[in-house]
Amino acid sequence: MRSKASDSILQATTYILQPMHTVGIIGGKGLLGRFFKKFFERLGQRVLVSDVSTKLTNRELVKRCDIVLFSVPIHLTQKIIREVITETNPRQLLLDVTSLKTMPIEEMMKSRADVIGLHPMFRPGLDGFKNQTVAICVGRAKKENRDLIEKWLAAEGATVRIMTPREHDRLMSIIQVLIHFHTIALGHAMRKLNVSLKRTLRAASPIYQLEMDMVGRIFSQDPMLYGAIEMLNPETRKVIKTLIHEAERLASTILKKDMRAFEDDFLKTAKFLGGFKKQALEETDRLLPHIRPAEKI
Amino acid sequence: MRSKASDSILQATTYILQPMHTVGIIGGKGLLGRFFKKFFERLGQRVLVSDVSTKLTNRELVKRCDIVLFSVPIHLTQKIIREVITETNPRQLLLDVTSLKTMPIEEMMKSRADVIGLHPMFRPGLDGFKNQTVAICVGRAKKENRDLIEKWLAAEGATVRIMTPREHDRLMSIIQVLIHFHTIALGHAMRKLNVSLKRTLRAASPIYQLEMDMVGRIFSQDPMLYGAIEMLNPETRKVIKTLIHEAERLASTILKKDMRAFEDDFLKTAKFLGGFKKQALEETDRLLPHIRPAEKI
Repeated sequence: MRSKASDSILQATTYILQPMHTVGIIGGKGLLGRFFKKFFERLGQRVLVSDVSTKLTNRELVKRCDIVLFSVPIHLTQKIIREVITETNPRQLLLDVTSLKTMPIEEMMKSRADVIGLHPMFRPGLDGFKNQTVAICVGRAKKENRDLIEKWLAAEGATVRIMTPREHDRLMSIIQVLIHFHTIALGHAMRKLNVSLKRTLRAASPIYQLEMDMVGRIFSQDPMLYGAIEMLNPETRKVIKTLIHEAERLASTILKKDMRAFEDDFLKTAKFLGGFKKQALEETDRLLPHIRPAEKI
Repeated sequence: MRSKASDSILQATTYILQPMHTVGIIGGKGLLGRFFKKFFERLGQRVLVSDVSTKLTNRELVKRCDIVLFSVPIHLTQKIIREVITETNPRQLLLDVTSLKTMPIEEMMKSRADVIGLHPMFRPGLDGFKNQTVAICVGRAKKENRDLIEKWLAAEGATVRIMTPREHDRLMSIIQVLIHFHTIALGHAMRKLNVSLKRTLRAASPIYQLEMDMVGRIFSQDPMLYGAIEMLNPETRKVIKTLIHEAERLASTILKKDMRAFEDDFLKTAKFLGGFKKQALEETDRLLPHIRPAEKI
């Protein structure tokens, strides 16, 4: 049984977040959870993991850690945070890696702990954070906790972008909701048209293969993640309705063979894209030689 | 004045297509025309060029050449071929580089010359034909003419795909009509949503930039070309109607938050994509480090 004195020493040392922390990862057996486990271990931290398959429960893990990371499916995030919130304490730092930020940060803020939301905007690969972007949304946090997280990510070569949860979710309505919707709809259309992927890839040039790679990339990942990203963003309706409306407008111009309207509209969007266009052309030209002919189809 | 004997010698030598030919390029001042001029010159051929700015007329050029290449805007192709058809002769080889093949080949077949349609499926860059695909549709041609064209393209590292004009146009209704439609509609939607490209690119990871690169690439090119490709393919209506229908179906699933339907549909398309998915994921992972952060926006 510990004395009150040793307890308060423990609290004090935890409070200032010494170089060595106990980091608990809820959902630590998942793809992103394992990625973050390795990350914290490389940084010399002690890591505990809970998941559906572990003896250690989420609530027990929260009691034992000074940093807690929620790395759970987006559609379960709210529920899982709520289940452990009574076990948190004001000396802790709560983190999450959800693809939306308003909802999880609101939930974590119901604790008295420090709260920092992260969104690693990539599928965890072999190269760690190198050349990748992580959005950071601070709910409430002491400067040393904010600095620590930024320092850790920077040490791994991540590009850190600080923004409000609202700003984050609005940006993601484009970066994720619009773009994924667009790619998923194309995949479905190709299936319905019963396209022979093999024949089109054989007949086409690398730029088409690159388009197909984007489709293949999405469909090789987790449907629940993509579904939740689409369903939970507050801007989804606006964004996808706009895309469908523009597709219908474009279809009507094309089917009427109205070249002047097609050109006018094309040039407006070209102007909207501004200086980015030239760079995009150069970059894709530069990438083409790196694209290898498709084989296993 | 030439004798009948020398005329028939001329005919005979032209007929077997000696290594040195006079190649006429109609539209030889355009992007693709200049690309092919260099190509024929590298092969040691004599090249004549006609264009809107040249003294040499299209009809005069056709009279003087043994190989004629039509490299003109797709919406003018039919008209331009018709204007010169009476000047062609049975000893000639007519080529075109139109993005559709049924229409130009039908027009060229009204001559008595050999007819081979080409579709170089790429934007002419610095690297010539290397790593690029050229579709070949033979209207009617002597074996030596077919072999010559294939040999020339192969010598430059092109991948040659032989197909019928009908097959070609059906494949292009996917490779070009569907994919370009999809990308152009996305560009328009981003403009209508007034997306800050700069802020999204700063906040996102390389894979989003790659998506935007595809949009920027299209809009940095010729609207008339893209318009004509959409408007002239006989399969356009079917293809774009299917895409819009699938987008509407997907939108409805998402707005109803029907995760089960979303997942079911997602897995069907994932299955449809088969072994290509894994390769797509690996390939895009491999490309990501080559993507440089956007600058000039």
